[in-house]
Amino acid sequence: MEKIGIVGAGLVGSLQAILMAKKGYEVHVFERREDLRTAPVIEGRSINLALSDRGWKALQLAGIKEEIEKIAIPMYGRCMHALDGTLTYQPYGKEDQAIYSVSRGELNRQLLNLAGAFPNVQLHFHKKCDDLNLETNALIFTDSQTKKQEEHTLSRIFATDGAYSAVRVRMQKSMMFDYSQKYLEHGYKELVINANPDGSHKLEKNYLHIWPRGKFMLIALANLDGSFTCTLFFPMHGEESFETIDTTEKVTAFFRKTFPDALELMPDLAEVYMRNPTSTLMMVRCHPWNYKDQVVLLGDAAHAMVPFYGQGMNCGFEDCTVFYEMLEKAGDSWENIMSDFSGFRQPDGEAIIDLALDNYIEMREKTGDPDFLLQKKIEAKFSKLYPNLWTPLYSQVTFSNTRYSEAYANGKRQDAIMKKILEIENIHECWDEDFVMEELLKLVK
Amino acid sequence: MEKIGIVGAGLVGSLQAILMAKKGYEVHVFERREDLRTAPVIEGRSINLALSDRGWKALQLAGIKEEIEKIAIPMYGRCMHALDGTLTYQPYGKEDQAIYSVSRGELNRQLLNLAGAFPNVQLHFHKKCDDLNLETNALIFTDSQTKKQEEHTLSRIFATDGAYSAVRVRMQKSMMFDYSQKYLEHGYKELVINANPDGSHKLEKNYLHIWPRGKFMLIALANLDGSFTCTLFFPMHGEESFETIDTTEKVTAFFRKTFPDALELMPDLAEVYMRNPTSTLMMVRCHPWNYKDQVVLLGDAAHAMVPFYGQGMNCGFEDCTVFYEMLEKAGDSWENIMSDFSGFRQPDGEAIIDLALDNYIEMREKTGDPDFLLQKKIEAKFSKLYPNLWTPLYSQVTFSNTRYSEAYANGKRQDAIMKKILEIENIHECWDEDFVMEELLKLVK
Repeated sequence: MEKIGIVGAGLVGSLQAILMAKKGYEVHVFERREDLRTAPVIEGRSINLALSDRGWKALQLAGIKEEIEKIAIPMYGRCMHALDGTLTYQPYGKEDQAIYSVSRGELNRQLLNLAGAFPNVQLHFHKKCDDLNLETNALIFTDSQTKKQEEHTLSRIFATDGAYSAVRVRMQKSMMFDYSQKYLEHGYKELVINANPDGSHKLEKNYLHIWPRGKFMLIALANLDGSFTCTLFFPMHGEESFETIDTTEKVTAFFRKTFPDALELMPDLAEVYMRNPTSTLMMVRCHPWNYKDQVVLLGDAAHAMVPFYGQGMNCGFEDCTVFYEMLEKAGDSWENIMSDFSGFRQPDGEAIIDLALDNYIEMREKTGDPDFLLQKKIEAKFSKLYPNLWTPLYSQVTFSNTRYSEAYANGKRQDAIMKKILEIENIHECWDEDFVMEELLKLVK
Repeated sequence: MEKIGIVGAGLVGSLQAILMAKKGYEVHVFERREDLRTAPVIEGRSINLALSDRGWKALQLAGIKEEIEKIAIPMYGRCMHALDGTLTYQPYGKEDQAIYSVSRGELNRQLLNLAGAFPNVQLHFHKKCDDLNLETNALIFTDSQTKKQEEHTLSRIFATDGAYSAVRVRMQKSMMFDYSQKYLEHGYKELVINANPDGSHKLEKNYLHIWPRGKFMLIALANLDGSFTCTLFFPMHGEESFETIDTTEKVTAFFRKTFPDALELMPDLAEVYMRNPTSTLMMVRCHPWNYKDQVVLLGDAAHAMVPFYGQGMNCGFEDCTVFYEMLEKAGDSWENIMSDFSGFRQPDGEAIIDLALDNYIEMREKTGDPDFLLQKKIEAKFSKLYPNLWTPLYSQVTFSNTRYSEAYANGKRQDAIMKKILEIENIHECWDEDFVMEELLKLVK
């Protein structure tokens, strides 16, 4: 009988606990922090989450899709705020397709509730992972309440302990383990647009709002209580940066100049800006994700990405789905399943890390670019005419379960084709004419 | 008065101690192992070192060039051993240019002797670095004899503690630090060709011997006692690999098939092969190399590379030279010197890491390729005719102090030109004719 250890009771760890519990295994979940289910709600530095198809699929597998739908706000497209206040709308997909703004805390709580309800799941809180003995497969923790060290020997271990994974540090030291961490020159800071006195939203709640400004950007996602969580992505250093915009006066002046319509919605902006921490953005890539048949990394521990495709959690959830399906297919035999999973899934992790980075440039630079917006319009039209011939990259990533690595390759092929289309003379005038579609059809076939 | 700490008394640490001592600073060197100067000589897993110009320049700066010349064996070129025993010679540079085979242990001992002779240098052995407090700039060690932990606060710290640097681990955790480690699929094992009974060498000692075999290779460098240290670079896994060639019978059969002339020179091959450890090859890249004006990484701690260009030590020594020269230029002011050094030198570290990896492919595959050998001949001829217009890449790296990053860029340009030359019809027949040189001259100008 397998004795499963899961390090980290975040989103991915909680989900994996549920899936392993459903299979009947004895599951032990170890979490550094206190029990989130009973802890007071703390507003953290978490960027609002955008749930999409891959995430929903996993939640369905876990059996809590309906519960989460109740607390999710659909966003049908981007709403771009130009400097002069002009709004431009761009749908994410077809009319009924949306990504969903959800509270990370609430989602995690619900997953933990469900995991804790299984009689074969034990949740251990206040357990800081110090190390892992790869010889014995024993996890070593310090209990933050008793201050004592304890060991737990497991037959299989899932490391879902995030971008700064302690389990991964041990693998990095003990085996032929390729590893890289890379910081963005940009960091982020959370801000807030409060609800109107009547509890209504100050912006349209069913859009993801973006203020693209080339070298930086502001975004806003709706909350259930009428507020918006905003995130400023901004250079850490340089002329206009977190380093230089460091007084209430400078913050206000900078927003007045750069985000005037947003400033109007945030009367206490400068205070919140000065109070909230500045966080960094790091990418992690590694290979392999497993140590023998004993340990495997899932979620951010395996593939930390920048948040610009809204896929961090969705990818982590899909890790769980993919592992679950592989285990099913293998008739619950664990032999080689971790190395097979690593081999199969790692290229998809790499692809979404690259896609997320590309999307950063797209969001902050291209969403304000007429050529880019035209390209999206032409793609949408063609895709509607020939849905079997063209699924936009964004839809492949967000509204399908196509492997990320395949989506990435498809996207590159599509970009090469669209580059040719945009070279057509006067394309901005003639884009809606039939011959453009015919030309595109020729290039696709 | 600066109090300088150096973590690691290997080649680069010992050299840096000498250079800082010459400047009059109080220098403390901390080394995990025992005192190499009095320890019994242990044959380690060290690949024989090939000293070249950058290394010599640093040794001259340290004042021990003449001492080391006495124990260095010049190698004027490569001697390639084909499967049928045919030997092909390829000079490294001009007639009097050579790289020098030296014993790592002996070189380190001499550097330590010299460092220890300065009254302002204190050598601390048996000090295993556990951590570094970046707030106080205190190094934390465990003494392996007393088992007690101790702290040493320094004003400036040089981390020369190698590819698995403990100081770097702290930086990786505590700042926006880009880091990557990557393993080669190949590992290595040391073998030996003993001297003849009369103490003479069994192969020509003034060449670096290579048995290039495509997917793997064997090399041999001469020692002063008449023996050769051989290194087998070989896949870790796969059909023909360290994993599969794992019995005395298989080793002998494999060498008989693949390296027959080498096998003849190594009657105890199988025994040595089974006894000696298999080691892995790892590359490390990181950025930045410094933490404020407090700590800087030098040598393998900053840029671990594969050993195929013979530049690992030479690059580490050049780090010391470059830092020394920058400090001189700044009039011994330490403000920003570490960040300036990191900014200036890091691209050179990146370049030599890439060059070393490229050279692996060159050594094991291309040195047996007629096109490649012809290219080298044409380059050599042109370089002799127009020495100001063409310095071969190998010579730029090995026999000059041109920045590695410049050499790398030059090399790429040269390769593009030579690609065109090799496309000339019947180039293998006509390469020595004048029009080839004229064509090359046109392309270069």
